[in-house]
Amino acid sequence: MRKVAEQIHGYTYGTSEVATSPITLEQLEALKVSVGFTEEDQHYLQQAGAVLADQTKQIVEHWRSGIIAGIPNLARHSRSPQGEPMPDYLAKSNLRFQQWILDTCLRPYDQDWLNYQQEIALRHTTLKKNKTDNVSSTPYVPLRDIVGFISVINETIKPYLAAKNHSAGEVDRMHRAWCKSIQLQLALWAEPYTDAKQAPNEW
Amino acid sequence: MRKVAEQIHGYTYGTSEVATSPITLEQLEALKVSVGFTEEDQHYLQQAGAVLADQTKQIVEHWRSGIIAGIPNLARHSRSPQGEPMPDYLAKSNLRFQQWILDTCLRPYDQDWLNYQQEIALRHTTLKKNKTDNVSSTPYVPLRDIVGFISVINETIKPYLAAKNHSAGEVDRMHRAWCKSIQLQLALWAEPYTDAKQAPNEW
Repeated sequence: MRKVAEQIHGYTYGTSEVATSPITLEQLEALKVSVGFTEEDQHYLQQAGAVLADQTKQIVEHWRSGIIAGIPNLARHSRSPQGEPMPDYLAKSNLRFQQWILDTCLRPYDQDWLNYQQEIALRHTTLKKNKTDNVSSTPYVPLRDIVGFISVINETIKPYLAAKNHSAGEVDRMHRAWCKSIQLQLALWAEPYTDAKQAPNEW
Repeated sequence: MRKVAEQIHGYTYGTSEVATSPITLEQLEALKVSVGFTEEDQHYLQQAGAVLADQTKQIVEHWRSGIIAGIPNLARHSRSPQGEPMPDYLAKSNLRFQQWILDTCLRPYDQDWLNYQQEIALRHTTLKKNKTDNVSSTPYVPLRDIVGFISVINETIKPYLAAKNHSAGEVDRMHRAWCKSIQLQLALWAEPYTDAKQAPNEW
Protein backbone atom coordinates (compact mmCIF):
# COMPACT_ATOMS: atom_id res chain seq x y z
CA MET A 1 0.00 0.00 0.00
CA ARG A 2 1.28 3.42 -0.94
CA LYS A 3 2.23 5.50 2.09
CA VAL A 4 3.09 9.16 2.50
CA ALA A 5 6.03 8.32 4.80
CA GLU A 6 8.01 5.31 5.96
CA GLN A 7 6.81 5.81 9.51
CA ILE A 8 3.58 7.61 10.40
CA HIS A 9 3.17 8.04 14.14
CA GLY A 10 -0.13 6.59 15.35
CA TYR A 11 -1.14 5.22 11.97
CA THR A 12 -2.41 1.78 12.96
CA TYR A 13 -4.41 0.84 9.86
CA GLY A 14 -4.84 -2.92 9.54
CA THR A 15 -3.06 -3.72 12.81
CA SER A 16 -4.32 -5.58 15.86
CA GLU A 17 -4.40 -2.26 17.73
CA VAL A 18 -7.56 -1.35 15.85
CA ALA A 19 -10.77 -2.82 17.30
CA THR A 20 -13.50 -4.32 15.15
CA SER A 21 -16.07 -1.73 14.11
CA PRO A 22 -19.52 -2.05 15.73
CA ILE A 23 -20.85 -1.51 12.20
CA THR A 24 -20.99 -4.68 10.12
CA LEU A 25 -19.91 -5.14 6.51
CA GLU A 26 -23.58 -5.79 5.75
CA GLN A 27 -24.51 -2.40 7.23
CA LEU A 28 -21.69 -0.84 5.22
CA GLU A 29 -23.15 -2.33 2.04
CA ALA A 30 -26.58 -0.89 2.93
CA LEU A 31 -24.95 2.46 3.54
CA LYS A 32 -23.19 2.36 0.16
CA VAL A 33 -26.60 1.88 -1.45
CA SER A 34 -28.05 4.85 0.47
CA VAL A 35 -25.10 6.98 -0.64
CA GLY A 36 -25.36 5.77 -4.24
CA PHE A 37 -21.74 4.60 -4.09
CA THR A 38 -21.10 2.30 -7.06
CA GLU A 39 -18.30 0.35 -8.75
CA GLU A 40 -17.89 3.27 -11.11
CA ASP A 41 -17.16 5.45 -8.08
CA GLN A 42 -14.56 2.93 -6.89
CA HIS A 43 -12.92 3.13 -10.30
CA TYR A 44 -12.83 6.91 -10.29
CA LEU A 45 -11.47 6.95 -6.74
CA GLN A 46 -8.54 4.85 -7.92
CA GLN A 47 -7.97 7.40 -10.66
CA ALA A 48 -8.27 10.20 -8.12
CA GLY A 49 -5.69 8.44 -5.97
CA ALA A 50 -3.21 8.41 -8.84
CA VAL A 51 -3.89 12.12 -9.43
CA LEU A 52 -3.63 13.14 -5.77
CA ALA A 53 -0.77 10.86 -4.64
CA ASP A 54 2.02 13.42 -5.14
CA GLN A 55 -0.13 16.35 -3.97
CA THR A 56 -1.19 15.16 -0.50
CA LYS A 57 1.32 17.32 1.40
CA GLN A 58 0.24 20.42 -0.48
CA ILE A 59 -3.47 19.62 0.00
CA VAL A 60 -3.17 19.08 3.75
CA GLU A 61 -1.13 22.29 4.08
CA HIS A 62 -3.88 24.08 2.17
CA TRP A 63 -6.50 22.73 4.59
CA ARG A 64 -4.47 23.19 7.77
CA SER A 65 -2.51 26.41 7.19
CA GLY A 66 -4.67 27.95 4.48
CA ILE A 67 -8.09 27.36 6.01
CA ILE A 68 -8.30 25.73 9.46
CA ALA A 69 -5.63 28.02 10.97
CA GLY A 70 -7.84 31.01 10.09
CA ILE A 71 -10.98 29.57 11.72
CA PRO A 72 -10.55 29.73 15.53
CA ASN A 73 -13.48 27.37 16.05
CA LEU A 74 -11.60 24.67 14.14
CA ALA A 75 -7.99 25.62 14.84
CA ARG A 76 -8.52 25.10 18.59
CA HIS A 77 -8.72 21.34 18.09
CA SER A 78 -5.01 21.12 17.34
CA ARG A 79 -3.90 23.77 19.84
CA SER A 80 -3.34 23.81 23.57
CA PRO A 81 -6.22 24.77 25.89
CA GLN A 82 -4.59 28.23 26.00
CA GLY A 83 -4.68 28.45 22.21
CA GLU A 84 -0.93 27.92 21.68
CA PRO A 85 0.22 26.16 18.52
CA MET A 86 1.47 22.57 18.99
CA PRO A 87 3.75 22.02 15.99
CA ASP A 88 4.69 18.44 16.86
CA TYR A 89 1.03 17.37 17.26
CA LEU A 90 0.14 19.12 14.03
CA ALA A 91 3.03 17.55 12.11
CA LYS A 92 2.08 14.05 13.25
CA SER A 93 -1.58 14.49 12.60
CA ASN A 94 -0.86 16.07 9.21
CA LEU A 95 0.99 12.95 8.09
CA ARG A 96 -2.04 10.87 9.04
CA PHE A 97 -4.30 13.39 7.30
CA GLN A 98 -2.21 12.97 4.12
CA GLN A 99 -2.36 9.21 4.40
CA TRP A 100 -6.14 9.44 4.80
CA ILE A 101 -6.37 10.98 1.31
CA LEU A 102 -4.55 7.96 -0.12
CA ASP A 103 -6.60 5.51 1.94
CA THR A 104 -9.82 7.18 0.79
CA CYS A 105 -8.88 6.72 -2.85
CA LEU A 106 -6.82 3.54 -2.96
CA ARG A 107 -7.87 1.17 -0.17
CA PRO A 108 -10.52 -1.51 -0.64
CA TYR A 109 -13.50 -0.72 1.59
CA ASP A 110 -13.21 -3.97 3.54
CA GLN A 111 -13.22 -4.94 7.23
CA ASP A 112 -9.84 -3.25 7.89
CA TRP A 113 -11.07 -0.06 6.27
CA LEU A 114 -14.33 -0.21 8.22
CA ASN A 115 -12.46 -0.75 11.49
CA TYR A 116 -10.19 2.20 10.79
CA GLN A 117 -13.15 4.49 10.10
CA GLN A 118 -14.31 3.73 13.63
CA GLU A 119 -10.79 4.40 14.93
CA ILE A 120 -10.73 7.77 13.11
CA ALA A 121 -14.14 8.57 14.56
CA LEU A 122 -13.09 7.68 18.11
CA ARG A 123 -9.99 9.85 17.81
CA HIS A 124 -12.30 12.85 17.43
CA THR A 125 -14.31 12.04 20.58
CA THR A 126 -13.53 12.23 24.29
CA LEU A 127 -12.75 8.52 24.18
CA LYS A 128 -9.54 8.85 22.14
CA LYS A 129 -8.79 12.45 21.18
CA ASN A 130 -5.24 13.54 22.16
CA LYS A 131 -4.32 10.03 23.31
CA THR A 132 -2.53 8.91 20.14
CA ASP A 133 -0.09 11.79 20.42
CA ASN A 134 -0.26 12.16 24.21
CA VAL A 135 -1.14 15.86 24.07
CA SER A 136 -3.45 18.23 25.88
CA SER A 137 -5.83 19.94 23.46
CA THR A 138 -9.64 20.23 23.18
CA PRO A 139 -11.24 17.10 24.67
CA TYR A 140 -13.22 16.30 21.50
CA VAL A 141 -14.24 17.69 18.12
CA PRO A 142 -17.99 18.34 18.05
CA LEU A 143 -19.64 16.35 15.29
CA ARG A 144 -21.00 19.54 13.74
CA ASP A 145 -17.44 20.85 13.20
CA ILE A 146 -16.61 17.68 11.27
CA VAL A 147 -19.83 17.74 9.25
CA GLY A 148 -19.25 21.39 8.42
CA PHE A 149 -15.63 21.13 7.37
CA ILE A 150 -16.48 18.32 4.93
CA SER A 151 -17.89 21.05 2.68
CA VAL A 152 -14.52 22.79 2.58
CA ILE A 153 -12.66 19.53 1.92
CA ASN A 154 -14.98 18.69 -0.95
CA GLU A 155 -14.83 22.15 -2.50
CA THR A 156 -11.06 22.58 -2.24
CA ILE A 157 -10.09 19.11 -3.50
CA LYS A 158 -11.48 19.79 -6.97
CA PRO A 159 -8.61 21.89 -8.39
CA TYR A 160 -6.17 19.20 -7.24
CA LEU A 161 -8.22 16.60 -9.10
CA ALA A 162 -8.01 18.81 -12.19
CA ALA A 163 -4.22 19.27 -11.91
CA LYS A 164 -3.23 16.40 -14.18
CA ASN A 165 -4.97 17.34 -17.42
CA HIS A 166 -7.93 14.99 -17.21
CA SER A 167 -11.03 16.10 -19.11
CA ALA A 168 -13.65 18.18 -17.27
CA GLY A 169 -15.98 15.18 -17.42
CA GLU A 170 -13.42 12.91 -15.80
CA VAL A 171 -12.62 15.48 -13.13
CA ASP A 172 -16.34 15.73 -12.39
CA ARG A 173 -16.65 11.97 -12.05
CA MET A 174 -13.60 11.76 -9.79
CA HIS A 175 -15.00 14.58 -7.70
CA ARG A 176 -18.43 12.96 -7.44
CA ALA A 177 -16.80 9.69 -6.32
CA TRP A 178 -14.72 11.61 -3.78
CA CYS A 179 -17.75 13.42 -2.34
CA LYS A 180 -19.68 10.16 -2.04
CA SER A 181 -16.79 8.47 -0.26
CA ILE A 182 -16.46 11.32 2.21
CA GLN A 183 -20.18 11.25 2.94
CA LEU A 184 -19.97 7.48 3.43
CA GLN A 185 -17.11 7.99 5.87
CA LEU A 186 -18.96 10.80 7.63
CA ALA A 187 -21.91 8.46 8.20
CA LEU A 188 -19.51 5.98 9.80
CA TRP A 189 -17.78 8.67 11.87
CA ALA A 190 -21.16 9.69 13.35
CA GLU A 191 -21.46 6.31 15.10
CA PRO A 192 -19.65 7.01 18.40
CA TYR A 193 -21.38 10.38 18.69
CA THR A 194 -24.91 9.04 18.42
CA ASP A 195 -27.04 8.79 21.48
CA ALA A 196 -28.26 5.25 22.10
CA LYS A 197 -31.57 6.64 23.28
CA GLN A 198 -32.30 7.84 19.75
CA ALA A 199 -31.39 4.52 18.24
CA PRO A 200 -32.36 1.67 20.54
CA ASN A 201 -32.11 -1.10 17.97
CA GLU A 202 -29.10 -0.15 15.96
CA TRP A 203 -25.54 1.05 16.01
CA MET B 1 -42.98 33.40 1.43
CA ARG B 2 -43.48 31.13 -1.53
CA LYS B 3 -45.21 27.87 -0.63
CA VAL B 4 -45.79 24.67 -2.53
CA ALA B 5 -49.40 24.48 -1.33
CA GLU B 6 -51.97 26.63 0.46
CA GLN B 7 -52.02 24.21 3.39
CA ILE B 8 -49.17 21.86 4.25
CA HIS B 9 -50.04 19.50 7.06
CA GLY B 10 -47.55 19.74 9.91
CA TYR B 11 -45.57 22.57 8.35
CA THR B 12 -45.10 24.82 11.37
CA TYR B 13 -42.23 27.04 10.17
CA GLY B 14 -42.11 30.33 12.06
CA THR B 15 -45.01 29.47 14.39
CA SER B 16 -45.09 29.30 18.18
CA GLU B 17 -45.33 25.50 17.92
CA VAL B 18 -41.63 25.41 17.07
CA ALA B 19 -39.30 25.55 20.07
CA THR B 20 -36.16 27.66 20.17
CA SER B 21 -33.14 25.75 18.90
CA PRO B 22 -30.53 24.81 21.50
CA ILE B 23 -28.00 26.08 18.97
CA THR B 24 -27.48 29.83 19.09
CA LEU B 25 -27.27 32.23 16.15
CA GLU B 26 -23.64 32.79 17.18
CA GLN B 27 -22.94 29.05 16.86
CA LEU B 28 -24.71 29.09 13.50
CA GLU B 29 -22.40 31.88 12.33
CA ALA B 30 -19.36 29.84 13.46
CA LEU B 31 -20.73 26.85 11.59
CA LYS B 32 -21.21 28.91 8.42
CA VAL B 33 -17.53 29.80 8.62
CA SER B 34 -16.54 26.13 9.04
CA VAL B 35 -18.68 25.23 6.02
CA GLY B 36 -17.31 28.12 3.98
CA PHE B 37 -20.84 29.41 3.44
CA THR B 38 -20.64 32.97 2.10
CA GLU B 39 -22.85 35.80 0.85
CA GLU B 40 -22.10 34.60 -2.66
CA ASP B 41 -23.61 31.25 -1.73
CA GLN B 42 -26.71 33.00 -0.39
CA HIS B 43 -27.02 34.82 -3.70
CA TYR B 44 -26.73 31.61 -5.73
CA LEU B 45 -29.22 29.84 -3.46
CA GLN B 46 -31.75 32.55 -4.31
CA GLN B 47 -31.08 31.91 -7.97
CA ALA B 48 -31.39 28.16 -7.37
CA GLY B 49 -34.73 28.78 -5.66
CA ALA B 50 -36.03 30.58 -8.74
CA VAL B 51 -34.82 27.69 -10.92
CA LEU B 52 -36.24 24.93 -8.72
CA ALA B 53 -39.53 26.55 -7.63
CA ASP B 54 -41.69 24.96 -10.34
CA GLN B 55 -39.81 21.63 -10.21
CA THR B 56 -40.15 20.72 -6.52
CA LYS B 57 -42.94 18.16 -7.06
CA GLN B 58 -40.95 16.40 -9.78
CA ILE B 59 -37.75 16.44 -7.69
CA VAL B 60 -39.38 14.97 -4.59
CA GLU B 61 -41.07 12.30 -6.73
CA HIS B 62 -37.67 11.50 -8.20
CA TRP B 63 -36.19 11.11 -4.71
CA ARG B 64 -39.15 9.24 -3.21
CA SER B 65 -40.43 7.03 -6.02
CA GLY B 66 -37.32 6.93 -8.18
CA ILE B 67 -34.75 6.25 -5.49
CA ILE B 68 -35.91 5.81 -1.87
CA ALA B 69 -38.69 3.37 -2.84
CA GLY B 70 -36.02 1.10 -4.32
CA ILE B 71 -33.81 1.12 -1.20
CA PRO B 72 -35.52 -0.97 1.51
CA ASN B 73 -33.21 0.45 4.18
CA LEU B 74 -34.58 3.94 3.46
CA ALA B 75 -38.09 3.12 2.23
CA ARG B 76 -38.97 1.54 5.59
CA HIS B 77 -38.99 4.95 7.26
CA SER B 78 -42.21 5.92 5.50
CA ARG B 79 -43.82 2.49 5.67
CA SER B 80 -45.66 0.55 8.35
CA PRO B 81 -43.70 -1.79 10.65
CA GLN B 82 -44.91 -4.59 8.33
CA GLY B 83 -43.48 -2.80 5.31
CA GLU B 84 -46.82 -1.69 3.90
CA PRO B 85 -46.96 1.59 1.97
CA MET B 86 -48.66 4.49 3.76
CA PRO B 87 -49.79 6.78 0.95
CA ASP B 88 -51.34 9.45 3.16
CA TYR B 89 -48.18 9.75 5.31
CA LEU B 90 -46.05 9.88 2.19
CA ALA B 91 -48.23 12.51 0.52
CA LYS B 92 -48.12 14.77 3.57
CA SER B 93 -44.41 14.36 4.12
CA ASN B 94 -43.74 14.88 0.41
CA LEU B 95 -45.39 18.30 0.53
CA ARG B 96 -43.12 19.24 3.43
CA PHE B 97 -40.14 17.81 1.53
CA GLN B 98 -41.02 20.04 -1.44
CA GLN B 99 -41.37 23.04 0.82
CA TRP B 100 -37.96 22.24 2.33
CA ILE B 101 -36.38 22.76 -1.10
CA LEU B 102 -37.89 26.25 -1.27
CA ASP B 103 -36.93 27.02 2.33
CA THR B 104 -33.36 25.87 1.68
CA CYS B 105 -33.02 28.28 -1.21
CA LEU B 106 -35.23 31.23 -0.35
CA ARG B 107 -35.47 31.65 3.43
CA PRO B 108 -33.13 33.89 5.40
CA TYR B 109 -31.05 31.76 7.75
CA ASP B 110 -32.34 33.50 10.87
CA GLN B 111 -33.72 32.38 14.25
CA ASP B 112 -36.93 30.97 12.69
CA TRP B 113 -34.88 28.98 10.19
CA LEU B 114 -32.54 27.74 12.91
CA ASN B 115 -35.48 26.68 15.08
CA TYR B 116 -37.05 24.80 12.20
CA GLN B 117 -33.81 22.92 11.49
CA GLN B 118 -34.04 21.57 15.03
CA GLU B 119 -37.71 20.69 14.46
CA ILE B 120 -36.79 18.81 11.24
CA ALA B 121 -34.03 17.02 13.14
CA LEU B 122 -36.33 16.01 16.00
CA ARG B 123 -38.89 14.66 13.53
CA HIS B 124 -36.30 12.08 12.47
CA THR B 125 -35.61 10.90 16.04
CA THR B 126 -37.62 8.86 18.54
CA LEU B 127 -38.68 12.13 20.13
CA LYS B 128 -40.92 13.27 17.26
CA LYS B 129 -40.91 10.82 14.36
CA ASN B 130 -44.44 9.75 13.33
CA LYS B 131 -46.07 12.20 15.74
CA THR B 132 -46.74 15.01 13.24
CA ASP B 133 -48.82 12.67 11.09
CA ASN B 134 -49.94 10.36 13.90
CA VAL B 135 -48.70 7.22 12.15
CA SER B 136 -46.93 4.04 13.10
CA SER B 137 -43.67 3.61 11.16
CA THR B 138 -40.00 3.13 12.11
CA PRO B 139 -39.36 4.80 15.48
CA TYR B 140 -36.49 6.94 14.13
CA VAL B 141 -34.21 7.44 11.14
CA PRO B 142 -30.63 6.52 12.06
CA LEU B 143 -28.35 9.50 11.53
CA ARG B 144 -26.20 7.49 9.14
CA ASP B 145 -29.20 7.02 6.79
CA ILE B 146 -29.63 10.79 6.68
CA VAL B 147 -25.92 11.49 6.19
CA GLY B 148 -25.79 8.89 3.44
CA PHE B 149 -28.82 10.05 1.49
CA ILE B 150 -27.47 13.61 1.37
CA SER B 151 -25.09 12.35 -1.33
CA VAL B 152 -28.01 11.28 -3.49
CA ILE B 153 -29.84 14.55 -2.93
CA ASN B 154 -26.77 16.54 -3.92
CA GLU B 155 -26.02 14.45 -6.99
CA THR B 156 -29.57 14.33 -8.33
CA ILE B 157 -30.40 18.02 -7.82
CA LYS B 158 -27.81 19.15 -10.38
CA PRO B 159 -29.77 18.41 -13.59
CA TYR B 160 -32.73 20.32 -12.14
CA LEU B 161 -30.44 23.28 -11.49
CA ALA B 162 -29.35 23.06 -15.14
CA ALA B 163 -32.90 22.91 -16.49
CA LYS B 164 -33.33 26.65 -17.09
CA ASN B 165 -30.47 27.37 -19.47
CA HIS B 166 -28.03 28.92 -17.05
CA SER B 167 -24.36 28.66 -18.02
CA ALA B 168 -22.36 25.66 -16.76
CA GLY B 169 -20.43 28.04 -14.48
CA GLU B 170 -23.63 29.38 -12.94
CA VAL B 171 -25.05 25.89 -12.49
CA ASP B 172 -21.80 24.90 -10.74
CA ARG B 173 -22.03 27.87 -8.42
CA MET B 174 -25.70 27.19 -7.62
CA HIS B 175 -24.82 23.55 -6.98
CA ARG B 176 -21.89 24.43 -4.73
CA ALA B 177 -24.12 26.76 -2.70
CA TRP B 178 -26.77 24.03 -2.48
CA CYS B 179 -24.26 21.44 -1.25
CA LYS B 180 -22.89 23.83 1.38
CA SER B 181 -26.39 24.62 2.64
CA ILE B 182 -27.27 20.94 2.93
CA GLN B 183 -24.05 20.24 4.84
CA LEU B 184 -24.83 23.19 7.13
CA GLN B 185 -28.29 21.77 7.74
CA LEU B 186 -26.88 18.28 8.29
CA ALA B 187 -24.57 19.65 10.99
CA LEU B 188 -27.63 21.16 12.70
CA TRP B 189 -29.68 17.97 12.29
CA ALA B 190 -26.96 16.00 14.07
CA GLU B 191 -27.63 17.88 17.31
CA PRO B 192 -30.41 15.75 18.87
CA TYR B 193 -28.55 12.58 17.92
CA THR B 194 -25.31 13.48 19.65
CA ASP B 195 -24.42 11.84 22.90
CA ALA B 196 -23.89 14.37 25.66
CA LYS B 197 -21.05 12.24 26.99
CA GLN B 198 -19.04 13.05 23.88
CA ALA B 199 -19.74 16.72 24.17
CA PRO B 200 -19.96 17.78 27.81
CA ASN B 201 -19.54 21.53 27.22
CA GLU B 202 -21.49 22.14 24.06
CA TRP B 203 -24.72 21.60 22.18
